[in-house]
Amino acid sequence: MSAAARFSFNHATAKFWDQREAVEACARAGAGIGLWREPLQEMGVEATAKLVQDAGVEVTSLCRAGFFTDPTAAALEDNRKAIDEAAAVGAPTLVLVSGGIPDGGTIDSAREGVKEALAQLAPYALERGVTLAIEPLHPMFASDRCVVTTLAEALDLAAPFATAAVGVVVDTYHIWWDPQVWQGIARAGREGRIASFQFADWITPLPAGVLTGRGQLGDGCVDFKRYLAEVDAAGFTGPIEVELFNDALWARPGAEVFQETRAAFERVVA
Amino acid sequence: MSAAARFSFNHATAKFWDQREAVEACARAGAGIGLWREPLQEMGVEATAKLVQDAGVEVTSLCRAGFFTDPTAAALEDNRKAIDEAAAVGAPTLVLVSGGIPDGGTIDSAREGVKEALAQLAPYALERGVTLAIEPLHPMFASDRCVVTTLAEALDLAAPFATAAVGVVVDTYHIWWDPQVWQGIARAGREGRIASFQFADWITPLPAGVLTGRGQLGDGCVDFKRYLAEVDAAGFTGPIEVELFNDALWARPGAEVFQETRAAFERVVA
Repeated sequence: MSAAARFSFNHATAKFWDQREAVEACARAGAGIGLWREPLQEMGVEATAKLVQDAGVEVTSLCRAGFFTDPTAAALEDNRKAIDEAAAVGAPTLVLVSGGIPDGGTIDSAREGVKEALAQLAPYALERGVTLAIEPLHPMFASDRCVVTTLAEALDLAAPFATAAVGVVVDTYHIWWDPQVWQGIARAGREGRIASFQFADWITPLPAGVLTGRGQLGDGCVDFKRYLAEVDAAGFTGPIEVELFNDALWARPGAEVFQETRAAFERVVA
Repeated sequence: MSAAARFSFNHATAKFWDQREAVEACARAGAGIGLWREPLQEMGVEATAKLVQDAGVEVTSLCRAGFFTDPTAAALEDNRKAIDEAAAVGAPTLVLVSGGIPDGGTIDSAREGVKEALAQLAPYALERGVTLAIEPLHPMFASDRCVVTTLAEALDLAAPFATAAVGVVVDTYHIWWDPQVWQGIARAGREGRIASFQFADWITPLPAGVLTGRGQLGDGCVDFKRYLAEVDAAGFTGPIEVELFNDALWARPGAEVFQETRAAFERVVA
């Protein structure tokens, strides 16, 4: 399969675009889609499952669960619900963002919480045929969103579990700075853990709060061709999702953002 | 020496405070000072040397040179000048921030540039009795300010050189998120590379541009007691500089910021 044919549009790139319109645009373009729980729940699980099935669109992931550094019963219950949702819409992968440092905790104690939560959830995910994908986020999110910051750390967390139960997300935006990133990708491939591959570019200056500053592909410093080559060499040939959190993109019509993003993707992988 | 007695005030914490007043406040408090090149040059190298000598204040570092990922003759010349300045004012350590990705380069090529620049500068630093201290910055600065992002990477860069010529900065603000940070500190001690130890706290939300969002000690998630214990265990018992880039602090009178910072330091190490 050519790289261009592996394009999947993560719904968050056009966050305020109607889910039905997004799925239909993906169907027309032969693209996959990465769904998000909020619009899925708004439409309903069964209606969303019917939508993607009728459209013949591949759901490449469901975003986003996790937030279990303090693994309370409620946090675990919400994650089980997310696993059920992923299974219902045919998403092979549920993306997990671990959560930040709980009140009174440290980053080390929060990381222990992630281990506990994964041990609780992995058997449930395996039964339902959904792979939990641990996403290392950029270290600028380490205190408030995600204490997991590198591929190596995500792989260590995944190691105790079956590869069908727990994998990792390779997202260029979050890991491009890591001096060990090529070794991390090779290891992820060798260990059979690449559950999701996502593209976003790194641009500066970062906006206040730093959440919504991801760059359109080609606008920043990420060497996408090299990432593609390294992930290919690691044995992963599945879909590539483009997921851009960007206020300027979110302010524009979804259909326009979809076309621009697809064109940018084709340029950076050509 | 008690931890409280190791306090050194980095001038950048009160960026707009007159250098003479800052040095005199440090003298009265028995504190060291971390100087910056811009105010030093404004006063003049000899006048600054006389100021700190007359006041009996220990200069714990000079900030900041580097920015040599594209190691042009001009960049190297400016670094040699900074080494001379450090020697002249009795600073044992010159802090180096590597610089970001040059136009047309990649982060990998920029890291090669750092290696070349260090090889050019290390003999010159050694001759003048100044240790170059490679500072890993938080990965949110990796594209535009510093491609060196972890202690491990800084230690690998330092490894070819004499310990008197090249060391590393252990700055809590930049490395607190690193899952390998305790191993990195232990290694830095074992290899004799801890040339500077700096404190700042990590707080969110980050401001736009992310440069000026450092927290006063105790306001964020950094476990200073643990850092102190680990760096002590690694064999470094020298001064601890507090360096806070923070717009709100910069807007206040320097003398007030000095007192507040010193009190915060004493609280977090007590």
